[in-house]
Amino acid sequence: MTICAIEFVLKRCTELNDRVLKTFRCLIADLCEQFRGGHPGSAMGMAAIGIALWKYMMKYSPTNPDFFNRDRFVLSNGHTCLFQYTFLHLVGYEHMTFEQLKTYHSSRTDSFCPGHPEIEHPGIELTTGPLGQGVANAVGLAMATKHLAATYNRPEYPVVNNITWCMIGDACLQEGVALEAISLAGHWKLNNLVMIYDNNQITCDGSVDLCNNEDINAKMLACGWNVINVPNGNHDIEGIVRALVSARNSKDKPTLVNIRTVIGIGSKSAGDAKAHGAAFGAEDVASIKRKFGMDETKHFQVSDEVYDFFREAKPRGRQLEAEWNNLVDSYAQTYPELHKEFSLRVAGKCTDDWTKFIPAKSDLPTSPIASRKSSGLVCNPLAQNIKNFMVGTADLSPSVNMIWKGKIDFQHPDRRTSCGIHGDYSGRYIHWGVREHAMASISNGLAAFNKGTIIPVTSSFFMFYTYAAPGIRMGALQRLQQIHIATHDSIGTGEDGPTHQPIELAALYRAMPNLLYIRPADGEETAGAYIAAMKATDTPSMISLSRQDLEQYPQHSSRDGVQQGAYVLMEKANADVTLIGVGAEMVFAVKTAQLLEDKFGLKARVVSFPCQRLFDQQPIEYKREVLQYRSNAPRVVVEAYAAQGWERYADAGYSMHSFGHSLPGKDAYRYFRFDENLIAPKVAELVKGVRSNGIESLRAAGHTLSHSICDLEDQSKTVFQ
Amino acid sequence: MTICAIEFVLKRCTELNDRVLKTFRCLIADLCEQFRGGHPGSAMGMAAIGIALWKYMMKYSPTNPDFFNRDRFVLSNGHTCLFQYTFLHLVGYEHMTFEQLKTYHSSRTDSFCPGHPEIEHPGIELTTGPLGQGVANAVGLAMATKHLAATYNRPEYPVVNNITWCMIGDACLQEGVALEAISLAGHWKLNNLVMIYDNNQITCDGSVDLCNNEDINAKMLACGWNVINVPNGNHDIEGIVRALVSARNSKDKPTLVNIRTVIGIGSKSAGDAKAHGAAFGAEDVASIKRKFGMDETKHFQVSDEVYDFFREAKPRGRQLEAEWNNLVDSYAQTYPELHKEFSLRVAGKCTDDWTKFIPAKSDLPTSPIASRKSSGLVCNPLAQNIKNFMVGTADLSPSVNMIWKGKIDFQHPDRRTSCGIHGDYSGRYIHWGVREHAMASISNGLAAFNKGTIIPVTSSFFMFYTYAAPGIRMGALQRLQQIHIATHDSIGTGEDGPTHQPIELAALYRAMPNLLYIRPADGEETAGAYIAAMKATDTPSMISLSRQDLEQYPQHSSRDGVQQGAYVLMEKANADVTLIGVGAEMVFAVKTAQLLEDKFGLKARVVSFPCQRLFDQQPIEYKREVLQYRSNAPRVVVEAYAAQGWERYADAGYSMHSFGHSLPGKDAYRYFRFDENLIAPKVAELVKGVRSNGIESLRAAGHTLSHSICDLEDQSKTVFQ
Repeated sequence: MTICAIEFVLKRCTELNDRVLKTFRCLIADLCEQFRGGHPGSAMGMAAIGIALWKYMMKYSPTNPDFFNRDRFVLSNGHTCLFQYTFLHLVGYEHMTFEQLKTYHSSRTDSFCPGHPEIEHPGIELTTGPLGQGVANAVGLAMATKHLAATYNRPEYPVVNNITWCMIGDACLQEGVALEAISLAGHWKLNNLVMIYDNNQITCDGSVDLCNNEDINAKMLACGWNVINVPNGNHDIEGIVRALVSARNSKDKPTLVNIRTVIGIGSKSAGDAKAHGAAFGAEDVASIKRKFGMDETKHFQVSDEVYDFFREAKPRGRQLEAEWNNLVDSYAQTYPELHKEFSLRVAGKCTDDWTKFIPAKSDLPTSPIASRKSSGLVCNPLAQNIKNFMVGTADLSPSVNMIWKGKIDFQHPDRRTSCGIHGDYSGRYIHWGVREHAMASISNGLAAFNKGTIIPVTSSFFMFYTYAAPGIRMGALQRLQQIHIATHDSIGTGEDGPTHQPIELAALYRAMPNLLYIRPADGEETAGAYIAAMKATDTPSMISLSRQDLEQYPQHSSRDGVQQGAYVLMEKANADVTLIGVGAEMVFAVKTAQLLEDKFGLKARVVSFPCQRLFDQQPIEYKREVLQYRSNAPRVVVEAYAAQGWERYADAGYSMHSFGHSLPGKDAYRYFRFDENLIAPKVAELVKGVRSNGIESLRAAGHTLSHSICDLEDQSKTVFQ
Repeated sequence: MTICAIEFVLKRCTELNDRVLKTFRCLIADLCEQFRGGHPGSAMGMAAIGIALWKYMMKYSPTNPDFFNRDRFVLSNGHTCLFQYTFLHLVGYEHMTFEQLKTYHSSRTDSFCPGHPEIEHPGIELTTGPLGQGVANAVGLAMATKHLAATYNRPEYPVVNNITWCMIGDACLQEGVALEAISLAGHWKLNNLVMIYDNNQITCDGSVDLCNNEDINAKMLACGWNVINVPNGNHDIEGIVRALVSARNSKDKPTLVNIRTVIGIGSKSAGDAKAHGAAFGAEDVASIKRKFGMDETKHFQVSDEVYDFFREAKPRGRQLEAEWNNLVDSYAQTYPELHKEFSLRVAGKCTDDWTKFIPAKSDLPTSPIASRKSSGLVCNPLAQNIKNFMVGTADLSPSVNMIWKGKIDFQHPDRRTSCGIHGDYSGRYIHWGVREHAMASISNGLAAFNKGTIIPVTSSFFMFYTYAAPGIRMGALQRLQQIHIATHDSIGTGEDGPTHQPIELAALYRAMPNLLYIRPADGEETAGAYIAAMKATDTPSMISLSRQDLEQYPQHSSRDGVQQGAYVLMEKANADVTLIGVGAEMVFAVKTAQLLEDKFGLKARVVSFPCQRLFDQQPIEYKREVLQYRSNAPRVVVEAYAAQGWERYADAGYSMHSFGHSLPGKDAYRYFRFDENLIAPKVAELVKGVRSNGIESLRAAGHTLSHSICDLEDQSKTVFQ
């Protein structure tokens, strides 16, 4: 729609606009009043923005919420979800019946109206809620468009050219993740991104100036954005539309549309924090209706006139789809090969024969090599050949080995960098800068553009996935396939010291639902980890890798074994003990086994245990076989992390009781007594104890057998009674 | 020193300055070359800044690194630690001998020169390393000064008036936590904070413009900062000193001194990312020395002239101390009462009789109440009466109940907010905004100003402590006493849905070394949690609280029990089962126990288990008594989190297998089968199984007994053989 046409439409329906606004606002108040809860204030304040978006601006198709080239809408201030649900209802998304709308805050388990928007439901692009992340998600969606457009568009064939609209509140602009993402969006000149700021100057605590007095417009300009102000965002739909049109036409910058609104407009707590997160109460709701000229005795009033106002959304959407389908048909004829590939991407698939890019065992080095390097050997060919991969690093290119031959950076094509590395939007290597949280949260946007179309691969030191954790969680919650490459994953990281040596972080990622945390022990297992990650199409994976060189076990290690989470690396009949080795600490398990045989006359089998969650999914018979639960041989795990979580699989363990220490990697291991010469006697002692007391005596130990996990070093205290 | 005097000094020693610069730079190159590792580039680039700071600007006393009113120096780009270590050596910190300096990257376990600065060592204010957090730490230190000054300074008695200097690199300015903290520093007008930007435009990946093209000066101005540029930071010590003097004199804004430097200056990789994180190699080191007119055949050359250059630091420091001591003596006479309190704060103590502010059991409500409200009842009087408390919230004042009667906000005294809440620097209530990570990392600065002087209390929803995790970790690593109030800690959070319902987060905090994660079950236990947190003077605590009302157990619950981590809430002789209740889910344990007796004729005892770490510290006899390890009664834990970690204490459990669901709290519990009517039959079945098969049969279960933790709901699969 041209501005001219919009002007005509707007003029024609100013009064009608006003009635729609009033209807919408009363409806929000009613919906919150129903169960006396929810977030009415901002949704009411944003009503005019919503009309501008769904009536005048956005490309979407209510009858096909998944229309590929639709505009993407992200509600970063997710608590205002009624705003989105109500517009989805009004414009005719079929699932969003009036009855559904009324399930908001109800006890109905089949509601499409949860307290924050969730990706599972039609018309919702992404689950949002933890503030700030929506901004990053939107940056990811806009990047995806740029990337797909640069890859597949051809002159006269703009098969991907959608806009990303992101709604934010005051709080989103305070969160670090948003500030990181804003900086990146400016850097990449994402002119297809429009961030609409519901500037009501209120957060939970009161007025924003309690904790924020910055000049946000100047800050955005400094970050390379356009800024457009709309002073009266409560009613000036025309002003909003003009601003949004202007934003959509931006040539080389993302745009912030800064719209001044009043939270809870019409209510007695208008403009006050009280309007944020609670229903107004029956009296105020009645008063709102009086003020807006609605019937105060009636609830949930939506006149036919209001439905008629949005009636055109469905046919317009169908027309958009038809036009796009025609365009793609004609594209198929002109560019048949490209179309074939494009169709695969639209279907969210990658090439079926990806396994051929993963090096065979025989092609992997057999001498010691860091698993972060093994990872490069596996990932680089995948990244080179699978166009779905977009690989990036939080400024650790020299350390994480993610660069493949001929990689092109994702950059604005005009960007010239001083170090001479350039790129364009077709590039699939991303310099995230030192912004781990944005890396993870933007990657969620990349992955959510269309499931499977892009497989984001992030990378950093494992420790810094603490910074990224809120984004990793949202990826897991949304079941987005992603691969997170976490290097320097143990005290072997060495000199950088305890700030860089993870101890407790694996406990988080092993406990996080729907995430595979995989710690391969050598190159072959690293290949296995990537295979698991590729197969996990509805699960993000984190592959945890060493800085230091690791022994390779080509005679024993198995990529297939990794798929089962754990497997017998070195079998031994009638073993006295099962040693569980994990990732970078496998070497201690293997050497301890040898030493037990040589010096103590004990038979030890070795189990490799790269992924607890995959093991949990195996049949019981397999689990019994691997861990020999029915034998009297104790299981001892060796891992330089906090032991929590291993009690499920092991009877005892050699683990970390504290944070790490700044020492060269080998010395750090020694400092914390990771040394087969120290471990073997302890294991021998344990085996001896089990022999005299019976395996069940362990059960009666200190506090269940599992406490021995912590105290293999000091058995006298707790293990045997 | 006045500018005039500085000018004189500088002019006199320009050539000498130059020789010191060269000495310093060659020394750094040598120190990294020794063990072929470390971060030489930025330390060399920053040499002139270091001379400006330690020779001309900072107030410190090498013979007493803990001099209370010293300036604080934070090295946010902590990898450049050799920069700081070397200056500490040159100015005469006694522990930092030349021999010590040479332990950098060595295998010496007694080194004072770890790969990042660590708070344990003299002359180091804070452990830094994870980028960006140093900025937030510095904001905390500057806040501490402002707060103490507003509280204790009197006309002519500026007993606290130090400056905080924070050194940052390009990467620090990319991290969200720094951007959050910068925004707050501007808001609070912390004119005693000077951030010195080593602007070398290089990070690991290459030039900064690979991922950042923002106008950083404009951005800082927009955030309410001064900006001063120094174009030649490599040599222009005078320019740097002038800029720093001007920054120190800032009236109402923090200052960014943007200093252009060349990374690895003098080396062949000068100005290149290669100079960042690796030694230069012998040849280049020799070439650097030639370039700087030093003897290339010699290593570690520091002439007497160079030592002489810094010789004045010690006597100047002693004089500063003497002046301050005199000032405080005279203050003591004029303001004896205030001085008494001030001395207590300087000693890092709070009033001994704090226990009297904690409500007695008899004063706590006995009808159902949310533990977040119980927390308010306990914390508010503490906060009101203990001046060490600085309490804040990440914009959740209406939810976290941390406001006490008469609280004053920490604000610049001239700040007028639109919602009418004002404050001044003496205020002890902090509106952090929606900036959880900055809240935690700034709190580390508050706590580290002088251990014990300030006890920061943070608050937010538990879920959002994922955002704060990197800061919480640094607090634990540094053993800083803090209290983190994490409310809305279960699926009982309800309608906000899975984005707001923690499942896996407790696994992180329970595994994190040196942190107490405490989940009290009722008001009495909440009092116990605060007592534990107050006693933990070298440990941060996190108190995890419910949104929803909880049953109170005044006949059973015990604040003393909390100190032991777990205790018997309801004893029963010859029990068939021990039910472990935790926090908000205690109600299910208690009701299940009742139901087991009423309907199944089984005797169940109930253990309350608020804190695993405190329990781990108890004597073995106590543990046995509480959990009855030698009995044949299984232990079953009930908690709506991922089960990981409970295997150590329990044989089976009722836990979460997935993320949560948006439903009203009670319905969310029901949806996930937290209901005594569902739990009791499962427990009865387990008890029956144990009776027929013996408790040791559990051991032979699926994969160790602990798997039953996850599968109490589906015992057929895994528990008994």
